[in-house]
Amino acid sequence: MMPSKDSKHPPNLKISNIGEKKLIKRLLSRSRASQPNSPFFDEFYFKSLSDDAALIDLGDNYLVVTSDLLLESSHLPSDMSPEDRGRKVVTVNVSDLAAMGAKPIGFILSLGLPEDLPLNEFDEIMDGVLKSCQDYEMGLMGGDTNQSDELILSGTCLGIVGKNKVLMKEGARPGDVVAVTGSLGVAAAGFEFLLSPQPVKENLKKELRNSTLKLIQKQAIQPRARLKEGISLANTGAVTSATDITDGLASEVGELLEASKNSVGISLFETMIPITLEVEELATALDQDPLDLALYYGEDFELLLTIEKDEFKHLKDEFGLHQVGVVTDSGKMEIINKDGKTNILEGKGYQHFVNK
Amino acid sequence: MMPSKDSKHPPNLKISNIGEKKLIKRLLSRSRASQPNSPFFDEFYFKSLSDDAALIDLGDNYLVVTSDLLLESSHLPSDMSPEDRGRKVVTVNVSDLAAMGAKPIGFILSLGLPEDLPLNEFDEIMDGVLKSCQDYEMGLMGGDTNQSDELILSGTCLGIVGKNKVLMKEGARPGDVVAVTGSLGVAAAGFEFLLSPQPVKENLKKELRNSTLKLIQKQAIQPRARLKEGISLANTGAVTSATDITDGLASEVGELLEASKNSVGISLFETMIPITLEVEELATALDQDPLDLALYYGEDFELLLTIEKDEFKHLKDEFGLHQVGVVTDSGKMEIINKDGKTNILEGKGYQHFVNK
Repeated sequence: MMPSKDSKHPPNLKISNIGEKKLIKRLLSRSRASQPNSPFFDEFYFKSLSDDAALIDLGDNYLVVTSDLLLESSHLPSDMSPEDRGRKVVTVNVSDLAAMGAKPIGFILSLGLPEDLPLNEFDEIMDGVLKSCQDYEMGLMGGDTNQSDELILSGTCLGIVGKNKVLMKEGARPGDVVAVTGSLGVAAAGFEFLLSPQPVKENLKKELRNSTLKLIQKQAIQPRARLKEGISLANTGAVTSATDITDGLASEVGELLEASKNSVGISLFETMIPITLEVEELATALDQDPLDLALYYGEDFELLLTIEKDEFKHLKDEFGLHQVGVVTDSGKMEIINKDGKTNILEGKGYQHFVNK
Repeated sequence: MMPSKDSKHPPNLKISNIGEKKLIKRLLSRSRASQPNSPFFDEFYFKSLSDDAALIDLGDNYLVVTSDLLLESSHLPSDMSPEDRGRKVVTVNVSDLAAMGAKPIGFILSLGLPEDLPLNEFDEIMDGVLKSCQDYEMGLMGGDTNQSDELILSGTCLGIVGKNKVLMKEGARPGDVVAVTGSLGVAAAGFEFLLSPQPVKENLKKELRNSTLKLIQKQAIQPRARLKEGISLANTGAVTSATDITDGLASEVGELLEASKNSVGISLFETMIPITLEVEELATALDQDPLDLALYYGEDFELLLTIEKDEFKHLKDEFGLHQVGVVTDSGKMEIINKDGKTNILEGKGYQHFVNK
């Protein structure tokens, strides 16, 4: 395909030179510049184009809409059963609603299906989708199917949240506690095991405890969205900003700061980041730093929150929250290591397209 | 993948033995059986799971949600420019809103992008998406990107329609006029040309008029949704049922009947089906029946409507409608040919997955 004449880029620039997050921002910044001047934009205006989901004004409530697509080759390792795959496309979408404190109302599924997919497998995928919709108390509203080379599960989830309760990426204030809803890096450990070459996998099976293998795989293959926590925490009124951790803690901390004023910073405390023994066990066996699995991997679908300091102590036990840092006025992302030394935290996370 | 033990089907049954429309019905019938018992289902219940889009009750209005996915290999011939591809993913979704008389309020795009896609091409696809959103007077609300082997454009479109105005597949009454918003088979003719083997294509280029080649290709590559017509016709109150023609007239007539009572039938008049000279020209050159292109192909994105007989004569000229048949009480799909002979009309249309 020929590049257009009025191109602003060298024709040899590929999307792999840019990276996913920048592509999305590029897409949305172009969008903002061209919103049409329609009467509906007074009534149904959009907030938060860069947030976890889009918001439509319904008076007292926002309708929340999010869309996420899973591809067999990128997101669905062969160890996942068809039912697990169906569940996951619902969970990744619901997690975006959870991050905004929204209650799901319905799900729409577009499928790309290989021609030779056994009908049984289709039914099992649908079982997973429907069971997961039931778990999150919403219905499947519609769907369409297409023929494709690989399995494609494209979901759209609608939810509803009170305008005075919605959680956004913007809102962190210096002094707030930075917290997460559970331990980090568990799914990452699971994927590191599942995606290891066969000989490495066999070794790990001997080295690691059975309970470890079971737990880390389950978290990778059958993740759950923190929906109840998101909705209940939104109801407390104490959460100042939130997002779900899909690309790793560091990357999501960067997202919160990008949505905030320039002067807002976040400092994480390395010793406070909740890393379980299982994650340490896998990391040791693979000669990796367990902290990297927690900071740069994601897929646990825990929530990252900033919470008013005085409220945090009341909410901590009720929601099983872990403080991982504080909001500062430094404008920087920092991490204080075991020896008390402050380092700049790089915002990198798992990203498609980026040439590594 | 092993079939599950409690399977109700022989393990060798593939989705290609079933066909797309039956797969969707299978999916949605399973869904209906498992709608959760949640308080939100009183407030935001869903109508029309088998309609062109899902409806959510907002009081005086319905929120209309539809989702459609395009794959490079199935839906996007290489002759389409990146901008045309971006426009098409918006148009196929808006066409579903048009069929319900709904006004678009926003679009969400999930992209699967090959790693080596030039950044220019990404920008041109987005130009097409944004220009098309502007044409249909809505905004791009959000998006996400993923790495994939082939280009995937998955769109979700939201719209709004008054409860007393919404057009559904159900509602045709004996005596109503069956009408379409424009001539049929033009896009089909364009695709037949574009997908011909090179030597056939070269011959067609010599045989067909330049204006014919231009027109049929434009309809295939740059289709438009009949949005203004759908909204205005819904406002008249005279339309008793509607759908958009994506899989061919015969298939969509079948959809209207399936949504109706058993006694409702439709008879088409072969001589009244609007087929242009250009379509006849292409069909003759390829030794095909032009009627087949109109009945069994789709992709023109015209609307199929049933309209109260007395109102039809007032609306005909204003909206450029063509009567193609009448609603009967026979419970059958029939077509009356040039010689006045009545034949049963087969409901087949373009379908993925079906082994032909």
